[in-house]
Amino acid sequence: MRLLPTLALALVLAAPAAAQDAPEPPTPASVVAAAPASDWRAIDPADLLVMTLAPDRDGDARRVVIQLLPAPFSQGWVGNIRTLAKARWWDGTSVYRVVDNWVAQWGDADETKPLPEGLREVPESEYASLPGDSTLQELVADLAAAEYPELFDPYSLGTGHWNGWPFATDQRHVWPVHCYGSVGVARSTDTTGTGAELYAVIGHAPRQLDRNIAVVGRVIEGIEHLSTLPRGKGEAGVYDDEALRVPIVSVRLGNEVPELPQPVFEYLASDSDSFAEYVRVRANRKDAFYKVPAGGIDVCNVQVPIRRVPSE
Amino acid sequence: MRLLPTLALALVLAAPAAAQDAPEPPTPASVVAAAPASDWRAIDPADLLVMTLAPDRDGDARRVVIQLLPAPFSQGWVGNIRTLAKARWWDGTSVYRVVDNWVAQWGDADETKPLPEGLREVPESEYASLPGDSTLQELVADLAAAEYPELFDPYSLGTGHWNGWPFATDQRHVWPVHCYGSVGVARSTDTTGTGAELYAVIGHAPRQLDRNIAVVGRVIEGIEHLSTLPRGKGEAGVYDDEALRVPIVSVRLGNEVPELPQPVFEYLASDSDSFAEYVRVRANRKDAFYKVPAGGIDVCNVQVPIRRVPSE
Repeated sequence: MRLLPTLALALVLAAPAAAQDAPEPPTPASVVAAAPASDWRAIDPADLLVMTLAPDRDGDARRVVIQLLPAPFSQGWVGNIRTLAKARWWDGTSVYRVVDNWVAQWGDADETKPLPEGLREVPESEYASLPGDSTLQELVADLAAAEYPELFDPYSLGTGHWNGWPFATDQRHVWPVHCYGSVGVARSTDTTGTGAELYAVIGHAPRQLDRNIAVVGRVIEGIEHLSTLPRGKGEAGVYDDEALRVPIVSVRLGNEVPELPQPVFEYLASDSDSFAEYVRVRANRKDAFYKVPAGGIDVCNVQVPIRRVPSE
Repeated sequence: MRLLPTLALALVLAAPAAAQDAPEPPTPASVVAAAPASDWRAIDPADLLVMTLAPDRDGDARRVVIQLLPAPFSQGWVGNIRTLAKARWWDGTSVYRVVDNWVAQWGDADETKPLPEGLREVPESEYASLPGDSTLQELVADLAAAEYPELFDPYSLGTGHWNGWPFATDQRHVWPVHCYGSVGVARSTDTTGTGAELYAVIGHAPRQLDRNIAVVGRVIEGIEHLSTLPRGKGEAGVYDDEALRVPIVSVRLGNEVPELPQPVFEYLASDSDSFAEYVRVRANRKDAFYKVPAGGIDVCNVQVPIRRVPSE
């Protein structure tokens, strides 16, 4: 655990010796800007959820775009979420709970709306990958080997990124982690939740929820429409006045939104050289503003670059 | 670095063997509720800043209470902030920059308002304690020894709490860390800032700013009046429309607010048994909702308990 900060110290001490007229050190933004097109991966619109809220008080549109977690993770709940979106189940429901430095939560506030048929009851074992899943053995090994040694973690034996998503491992399982913007499945004490009640994290990463609640996606556009909502003053941050609920007009899969063009996003491939450099630079800022590079970074502070592809 | 997660694994494996009819496991809330009065420390109103914003659109009052960092940390800037508050310098300025998952920033948006006399120019060396400060040697040793082994950290050689505040060390210096709610001194590339332009963190802990920007305090009440503000759409998240600026009515030291009673808060002493138990329980949740205790916690997720003392 002492390796990385020592590295950081070395960098600090070395800094004054670095050439004065060397080229400007890279920034995370410059690394992303320099990434070749081949280092970006398209996100299938079918793997997006587009949630349209009622316009705000100024009449401005509010749209939140969520990317769903890829297989093999959390697919029981992700499948339910696809079913719910196709059934237009969320239309007419609301964002009904907002807690500062915690979550914004939506679904059926009264929990009286009948659910569509075909939802799975998902076992707790799906909070993480199954041990021995051969497709994931390499990922377990990669994370445990701390491919990016900057990513020490108090919550696991190793963290890293796979297909553009942050994960952690205990050397047997791999699980998706809760970061700012992560979307998870609200549940009661004795269930794993269906996916009908969802939340987005709007504060410091609540990593204690990892493996205790299903992570099913992340907000990739429009998080501000959730993070700026008034905080609830009722029990557990639920809006005590129903008038405060934020109406959900519709939730559609990205390939089923009526407007064209469909939303197209891409992420910086986490197995690319650009991504590796991006993590290193974020962990060791040496551009002019920074006097002391941190020498490390936590997995949720990496913030995978994702961008909207402009329509032609 | 592998110790703690192994411990976590042990806890998981042991859990089913734990008695079924044992008393309900403690929660962070139950630990705080059970803490004796002697484990709480009063916060001197003179160490608070009370920032009153203009009422919101519904006419509701907006007040933000900030606790200033205690000596010997960041006292150059903290002294400037006291001077600025006594000069009523912030009255009539505004919150003018809000960036999602980053900061809300206030002061003189146009940077034309003359500063009061007597502000210090603070050297970068004050971002952390001076090596050899004898009052802090014990703290350095405590943090480096990882008094709470749950607090592994990718950004330092050790983290922990002192007088109710989160700190990190490289085994020579100790520095206050950036967490959700932390208040810091905005600056340009070539200065350390006066303290006139301040920001509060409203997202995941930006620990890369540690030792690069002065931490001078933390919001202990009313953070929602900053975190829910509209995000700025101008350069670097500055409000591009001046009409969006949120007027600051006044900023006063807590012992100089005109209203009585003065605000009185207290924090759970970080050298108390209650605090140690609180950290352990937060890192190892075993109450009914949690299926897998995390086995660790990052320093910013500890969230030091602070409460307002009801006026008699």
